Formats: sequence, C-alpha cells, structure tokens
Amino acid sequence: MARDVMVGVDIGGTNTVFGLVDEDGRCLVESSIPTRSQEDAVSFVSRLAGEIVALHSPLAGEVELRGIGVGAPNANYYRGTVETPPNLDWPGVTPFVDLLRAFIDKPVVITNDANAAALGELRFGAARGMRDFIVITLGTGLGSGIVCNGELVYGHDGFAGEMGHTLVEANGRACGCGKHGCLEAYGSASGIRRTIFQLMCDRREESDLRRVSFQQMTAKMISDAAAKGDVLACAAFEFTGQILGRSLADAVAYTSPEAIIMFGGLANAGEVLFAPTRRALEEHVLPIFRGKVKVLPSGLPEGNSAVLGAAALAWTEHLKGAPARG
Amino acid sequence: MARDVMVGVDIGGTNTVFGLVDEDGRCLVESSIPTRSQEDAVSFVSRLAGEIVALHSPLAGEVELRGIGVGAPNANYYRGTVETPPNLDWPGVTPFVDLLRAFIDKPVVITNDANAAALGELRFGAARGMRDFIVITLGTGLGSGIVCNGELVYGHDGFAGEMGHTLVEANGRACGCGKHGCLEAYGSASGIRRTIFQLMCDRREESDLRRVSFQQMTAKMISDAAAKGDVLACAAFEFTGQILGRSLADAVAYTSPEAIIMFGGLANAGEVLFAPTRRALEEHVLPIFRGKVKVLPSGLPEGNSAVLGAAALAWTEHLKGAPARG
Repeated sequence: MARDVMVGVDIGGTNTVFGLVDEDGRCLVESSIPTRSQEDAVSFVSRLAGEIVALHSPLAGEVELRGIGVGAPNANYYRGTVETPPNLDWPGVTPFVDLLRAFIDKPVVITNDANAAALGELRFGAARGMRDFIVITLGTGLGSGIVCNGELVYGHDGFAGEMGHTLVEANGRACGCGKHGCLEAYGSASGIRRTIFQLMCDRREESDLRRVSFQQMTAKMISDAAAKGDVLACAAFEFTGQILGRSLADAVAYTSPEAIIMFGGLANAGEVLFAPTRRALEEHVLPIFRGKVKVLPSGLPEGNSAVLGAAALAWTEHLKGAPARG
Repeated sequence: MARDVMVGVDIGGTNTVFGLVDEDGRCLVESSIPTRSQEDAVSFVSRLAGEIVALHSPLAGEVELRGIGVGAPNANYYRGTVETPPNLDWPGVTPFVDLLRAFIDKPVVITNDANAAALGELRFGAARGMRDFIVITLGTGLGSGIVCNGELVYGHDGFAGEMGHTLVEANGRACGCGKHGCLEAYGSASGIRRTIFQLMCDRREESDLRRVSFQQMTAKMISDAAAKGDVLACAAFEFTGQILGRSLADAVAYTSPEAIIMFGGLANAGEVLFAPTRRALEEHVLPIFRGKVKVLPSGLPEGNSAVLGAAALAWTEHLKGAPARG
C-alpha cells in the first residue's frame, strides 16, 4: 500500500525549499528553487508546481500525495492568501492557495513560517506531547508561533503571533514595521548586528569586529567572535539574551507555556544566547511561574526544519479532517 | 420538568456573592456573605455550602442544581485549588473543590475571577459568538482572561492570563507581586490613585483632589472629578488610557483578538478611559491590526456580573461534558 505523504513548502526570500514528508516526520526527498524577488506570483507558483510534480513523479507508486502545507511571509491561514510580503514583488493580496490548487488538485493550506515552525515542533520536534508552548524564530526578523490548549493560535484575522512587534523600549530603535522599540529590532539576527555597533560606540575594548562594516556584519560573525572570547561579541549576546528573556517573561504571563523553543539562525549560537535568556526570564517572570518554564532549542533536524514545519501544517489539517481551505 | 441551573460563586476580599443561573444567563436568586479574612478555609467553605443549600432549597422542585462554578483569587483550574490568596488567611494550597464537594456532591470547578469574567462575556455578554477575545478586569488589581480558538487559555499550569504583571516601565513603580513596572501598578484602580498623586507632584493646577489623602483617595473620586472637568483627574485618565492602550497593542500582537473587553470598577468611568485607550491602541498596534480590534465595555449586568461569570464557568464545563475535577 502506498504511504501517505504531504508536501512541505517553505518560501524564503532567497530560496524556496520543498519536500515530501511522511506521518512520522521523515523527509523522503527534498529540493529547492531560487525564489526570484522580481517574479510575479502566478509565474512563481507555476514553476513551483512543476517542480513539486517532478519531485513526486518518480515515487508515484510508493507514496500517495495527500496535501500541501506552505510556510510563507505574511501568509493568512484563514484566507489562503499571501498579503504584501516584504521581500517579494507580489503586490496586494495573492490568493496563493487557489493559485496552487489550479496546478495541483490537492488540499493546500498556508501560514507564516513561525506558525509552521510551531506545528513542526509540536508534531515532530521538541514540543511533542505539549499542549501549551511558544516557538520564537530568530532570523533576520523575529517571528512567533503560539500554541494554547493543543491548538495553534491564529487569532480572529489569521495574523496572531507577532511577538516580534511588541514593545521593549519606548521610543527605541526604528523597526521595519514602521514602529519604534519593537522586540525584533533587538532580539533578532539583524538586532544583534545593531547591538554590536552600539557596543562599539559605547565601550572601548578592542575587537576584530571593529574592522567589519555595518553592511558586511552578520550574526554568524558575532557568534564566531563570541566563541573565541571576544568581549564585545559576548556582551552583545548578553544584552540580546537579557532583552529576549524579559520579553519571554511577559509571554509567560500571557499564556503560561510549558516551554519556549528558540528556533532559527541566531538560536544556533547556543549557550552564549540561551544562558542570559534563561537568567533574564527567571529574573523578570512573575513568582508563580519561576522555575517552571523550559527554554529549549529546536528539536527538528537543522537542514529541513522549515520543510518539516510546513508539512506538519498539512498533516495537522489532514488529521483533523477539515482543511481551512480547499 | 425542573430547569437546570448552576451556582455561580464569586469570592471577593470583602464579600462572597453567589446565585443560581440558568442556561440563558438569568440569575434566579442571589445572596452574599461577608468573606472574613481571618477565617480558615474549612470554616468558610462550610458556611458557604450552608448558604448555597439555603438559597437552593425553596426552589428545589423547580430547578435542578447541576454544578458549581467558583471565581476566586489565585485559583487553579487544573488542580481545583486556591493557592496563597493575597487577601485571605488561607496559607499554602487549599483544595477548595474537594472541600466544597464534601458538603455538596455536585461537580465543582474553579478559576480566577478574570477567567470567570471572560467565560461570562463569552456565554452571556459582549463576546457572544466570538472565538478570539480578551477580557481585562480593572479593579484594585488588573486581571485578564484570554480566549483563543473559542477556548479559555489556562496555560500548562492553570495560571495563564496574568497580563497585569507584564512590564510597561523598566524599573518603574513597585508592584504588589514584588516586581517593578508592572501594568497593574499603572492601569488599575490602585494604579490611577498613584497616578493622580504623581500628577499633583509634577503639575501646578488646582484640584479638589489635593485635599484628599493618599489613603482616602479612590478611583471613584478621580472619576467623579474628571466628570466635572477637573484637569488633573482628566489627565490621570488620559495617562492611564495611554498605558492601557499601549499594553493592549502588545496583547493584540500576541493573540489577535476580535475585541478587548474592559470590565470592572475602573471601566465604569466610561469614555474618559475608553477614548485614550482606543487612541493609544491604534497608535501603537502593528499596522496589519489597525482599525480591526474593538475595545468594548462589559455586556453583563453590572450587579451580578461576577456571579454570571462563575456560573458561566460551570455551564462551560457541563456543556462540554468533562469537568476538570469531580
């Protein structure tokens, strides 16, 4: 008998990755295409659909394709749309689910990448068996996926989980969203880049990072420098962890999660980030929550965590028997 | 045929109110007893149970008592306990549900008053038909009840919804919880009392409120003064609304509610509080949420809203057929 699989698709700013994932979270095959920021949505979806069919065809006898889950920036779960995504030339509201179903007649469901990551952790990763937890994705931006009572929180309009745009500093750093002082402007890969330059201004210690321009600086460089004991790089992680931990203390006050999972590029820095985050969380959290909340790394394999998350979305819809759309 | 009713019990610091509530949210009879802060829990529960039986007996042929819902400070839904409540002399963990069931053998369920208020609004009040909303209770403290996907968020340990203890001002006012800068220290009835004295320090305008001591000052006095155009009192509400609106903008980023309901004593001040709250919410909220979130007053009758909330908890458990305890 053919094994049921879902397609997981993660649309990133540079590459779109997709793969076939079975119910146990095994990624059977995976491929990717460049995303091409100038391409229009119809042409992109047509190209993506062709590649999915090409990936699936050689396995057609062995696996039964049951549905497609998509993680994409500014995706709306309820409407099946992608709405004015920041890094793509798709103006207005793109009916992504309808477009993809015009090429492949299977149930299609979509949400943003942080929500997909939360469902991936719930089904296949560090949150297996949990009913209440939060995933924060630390990439260029800071996303979050919140699970309460075993269900992802989409909110009444499908856009819940924007923890990156909660306030951490009144009149603080300008954020890409147009506001000032958002968590994302401090606690993300782009945030720690801003922090290292702030520290170079404020302090006098020498550092190899002083030779790097703002444009060239990456979170990976700061992480590598911290691993070698660079004082400013270590201080940047300390500051970032303090801001994150203080915000996570607020998140705990809202939904009292069993665990908070830190996911994505910046989280790979490891203890240099996790240690100050845990310390600040415990320091700022309401006493009744102290010592209760785990701060964990992702439990998904690093290489295809985004595909597993998107596939988990499709599995979740399939198993509850009621896809939101299609 | 006898009509099914639930008992709703609200345990306040001064009085405990209880009544019989039918499925349509009609409160058939209601009564109250003083709470007596020095009394131990067993003696209190014994007294309460006797009064409930006395309230129910005259109606025994007409109504069928199906369960009891209790709203109490520091109540834990999952464990059926009240844990070190701030205004009662009940040390440690009181197994409230088990105690009450020893006197009245019906399903008993308990949660804190803000969660009960949220269930009251959902079943009988301003949130009927909504799946995602937040209730904040503005009394001496600031409580919150969060509903996502149609279900109250209890969190993994039963203590979710502590929005009053999220950070609004780093190193700000001391809060009763032991932290500094919590929302509760600004956005509650006790918070606005602190604010009016801050304004008397900072500004020079005359005000009748300058004749009132800190101890004697109440939110009601400030509200009455504002209604007469007192400049400082109006400024105190403006400041309070700004802090509340900014925090609500963060709450929207977390769970994207359809509405936020402001409930309790301070909310009775009306537009003088609601107008600046709405303005600050719209100013600080992420652009994708602008113009989407309603800020509403309670839709429960003022006199017995707490009893209706507690009864709604019992009805919710009864109708889902699986009481958490008992």
